[in-house]
Amino acid sequence: MSDALSQLDTFAAASEPWFRERLRTLVEHPTVSPGKLDDRNILAGVDAAATIMREAGAEVDIVPTRGTPALLARFAHPQPRARVVIYNHFDVQPADPSGWDQADPFRFEVRPDPEREFLYLGRGTTDDKGPGLCALRAAQWVAQHQLPIEVSLLWETEEEIGSPNFDDVLDARKAQLTGDCVIVSDTIWPSAESPAISIGLRGGMLASLALRTGTKEVHSGLAGGVARNPLRELSILASAIEQAAFWRLDVADPSPEEIAAYLRSGFDPAYFKSAFQLDKLRSELPIEMMVALWSRPTFEIHGLAGGYQGRGVKSTIPEVAELKISFRLVPNQDPVRLYERLEQFVKLFNPDVEVSRVAHFVPYRGTTEGPIHEAIVHGMRTAFGREPSLVREGGSIGAVPKMAAKLGVPVHFLPLSLPEHGYHAPNERFDWKQAKGGIRAFVHTFARLAGV
Amino acid sequence: MSDALSQLDTFAAASEPWFRERLRTLVEHPTVSPGKLDDRNILAGVDAAATIMREAGAEVDIVPTRGTPALLARFAHPQPRARVVIYNHFDVQPADPSGWDQADPFRFEVRPDPEREFLYLGRGTTDDKGPGLCALRAAQWVAQHQLPIEVSLLWETEEEIGSPNFDDVLDARKAQLTGDCVIVSDTIWPSAESPAISIGLRGGMLASLALRTGTKEVHSGLAGGVARNPLRELSILASAIEQAAFWRLDVADPSPEEIAAYLRSGFDPAYFKSAFQLDKLRSELPIEMMVALWSRPTFEIHGLAGGYQGRGVKSTIPEVAELKISFRLVPNQDPVRLYERLEQFVKLFNPDVEVSRVAHFVPYRGTTEGPIHEAIVHGMRTAFGREPSLVREGGSIGAVPKMAAKLGVPVHFLPLSLPEHGYHAPNERFDWKQAKGGIRAFVHTFARLAGV
Repeated sequence: MSDALSQLDTFAAASEPWFRERLRTLVEHPTVSPGKLDDRNILAGVDAAATIMREAGAEVDIVPTRGTPALLARFAHPQPRARVVIYNHFDVQPADPSGWDQADPFRFEVRPDPEREFLYLGRGTTDDKGPGLCALRAAQWVAQHQLPIEVSLLWETEEEIGSPNFDDVLDARKAQLTGDCVIVSDTIWPSAESPAISIGLRGGMLASLALRTGTKEVHSGLAGGVARNPLRELSILASAIEQAAFWRLDVADPSPEEIAAYLRSGFDPAYFKSAFQLDKLRSELPIEMMVALWSRPTFEIHGLAGGYQGRGVKSTIPEVAELKISFRLVPNQDPVRLYERLEQFVKLFNPDVEVSRVAHFVPYRGTTEGPIHEAIVHGMRTAFGREPSLVREGGSIGAVPKMAAKLGVPVHFLPLSLPEHGYHAPNERFDWKQAKGGIRAFVHTFARLAGV
Repeated sequence: MSDALSQLDTFAAASEPWFRERLRTLVEHPTVSPGKLDDRNILAGVDAAATIMREAGAEVDIVPTRGTPALLARFAHPQPRARVVIYNHFDVQPADPSGWDQADPFRFEVRPDPEREFLYLGRGTTDDKGPGLCALRAAQWVAQHQLPIEVSLLWETEEEIGSPNFDDVLDARKAQLTGDCVIVSDTIWPSAESPAISIGLRGGMLASLALRTGTKEVHSGLAGGVARNPLRELSILASAIEQAAFWRLDVADPSPEEIAAYLRSGFDPAYFKSAFQLDKLRSELPIEMMVALWSRPTFEIHGLAGGYQGRGVKSTIPEVAELKISFRLVPNQDPVRLYERLEQFVKLFNPDVEVSRVAHFVPYRGTTEGPIHEAIVHGMRTAFGREPSLVREGGSIGAVPKMAAKLGVPVHFLPLSLPEHGYHAPNERFDWKQAKGGIRAFVHTFARLAGV
């Protein structure tokens, strides 16, 4: 078997055309879940993905839910020494073409790059179709080489909307999914030079605050001073929420060990600024930034819909407006509790505002002990040539705490994305250097778990 | 001449087809000035209006400016005993069809109505094309009957953007415009049962507050807590402005006589609520409402552009946002001074925010003494059968203080619009009862000024 592993680098390097063409197929299916009006694009994408999985040698099971289905692809072995599930998601964020260099974010493009060999551009390349294909290619390799391990790939299609029906999938396929562990490949490294393993996720709660004060917009001269302006009232409410304590309660401070791990992570403020193309930050002190990103809750405004959005100023008072907000949560915050507190706060501050919850995710803390963690550290170290650091992740994956709770198995992470890949952002990309390393990291992890 | 006046009611009543067809022509030219990309629609509308004015017997002078031109139509008399200028504006607000009952706000519609005889629907019907046509019809009548008065109609095309080039018009045609007075027909009555003459206008200042913190939107999990969110910062700024004193300085309280006039005005909160289709108000106490509308400044938010405006919540942090705001001003506030204070306040609160002024209007206080005021009171009383009350106007007309200052003549008001006509709102309308009365009110006012 060490013979086979000695051929792995050649195999991985030769996989670029395979990887590129399949990523093209997956990206060009616009599997957007937030705000979708129907399921057609996702269902067509699921069919295309199933074909790719079958061609790679997997048995494919399309798991229905009350929403859109999940894909479960199994590479079986008659006497596996380990059974692992690799979680990715197949749905993507919307993409407004105006912010992108390419005309159509769902038209896949490849660009040679001196550092990264190839850049793969398009919505979903890094979040999360590219990492999913790395796992598929690795699973195909271990199956072809008959490593004694069963690898199942689970691709969800509702991650970007908070996994509302993911429990259906876990309930329906609990036996197949309950192996030794789940490994999630949907998080990022602190920088391209700093391989890292995520050991926690922030949770989240997305909500909408709507206010209607009339049935048509009115003239700000003729009615201003007496008419209630929903934009003004919701702005004032947003500012009050910002100042309130309720969403900062129940926060567990990071331990001294975690702070020490943060300091070893290679986190670089200049790199962060450049990768996210940010001009100024709230802080540029590295430890303060890491604590803010990984161990502190946030309150963000994502949009205040209503009124006039065009050129210049149209001075009417609108009759209705909607404030779109989110909170990120950290251990030991509970999104259900937070939502109750938000409702209570809004009811006392402005009782005419209607609060509704759009999605929520429980924060997650993983383990850094045991053979699975060690296998992933080995896989990352072997593939990328450096000891991976242990970091937390600022983002949220609703499926992770659900899998930990429902399946009762540990959930680990094997991240492959970089900050500059642009999760949820224009000009999203993945790159071949990460993909090639990712295929190798997965194979080495699987080989270690298979005991070979 | 009393013979001729005895035929006026018949003439006015028979004018409906004339009025309807010309209003159709004017409304179906979409002479939108705010946010316009080019001048073509306004120039085409000016040509159509000039044709209508010439057919009515006027000499028409199209007055160029650095922006779009004004129309000046003169009905001359060899020995006038009075020379009056009637001011209206020919540009209109934008109209988003989604809020309208009719498919196209610029397609004129007529609807029979038991109360108002006919409703005329479309953007610009009441603000301010319908009142302008009433003055034109009345001027045509007095010219045909050779009343010794010279009536000039002045139609501006940049009122809705704050009259930035109106001084050009006043400078270029100062001699023709400097007669006995200007009468403005661009304000509203407190209700359909309460004819009123405006004796003051609020001023205004429209501004844009823009903030850029990066060059692309970023993931609220991966960067949230460190990235600066322009939507959050501008909401907090808006809330701070709301709480600040700077825009409430220099306010002259209304006199006891003005308060007494307000109390006699027939202002009815239930009618106000219904006309503006507002569910709840900031106050429903009539005197408090009138003071707030006519004698107090306001701060309004008209839009917070940026981020995600679609269905659901997309949880990214945008890189740029723009807060569109306005203030209404009352005597003795000065919009230039207010803008300086706004700049100072923003610089201290959030120095990265860029402030720019979009438009400003000085507040105006008129006179209730002299023969012109008396002639208008006579005209309104005769046409509408009730003594007009004296009110202020919550809106702003940038041209009014400019005319008072440049021409040195008193500026009076002869309002014809009603709250339910919907200035700047969807389903804007004018009605034949107001139009017919308006033609008669103008003729009786002109006749009194001509001494017949």
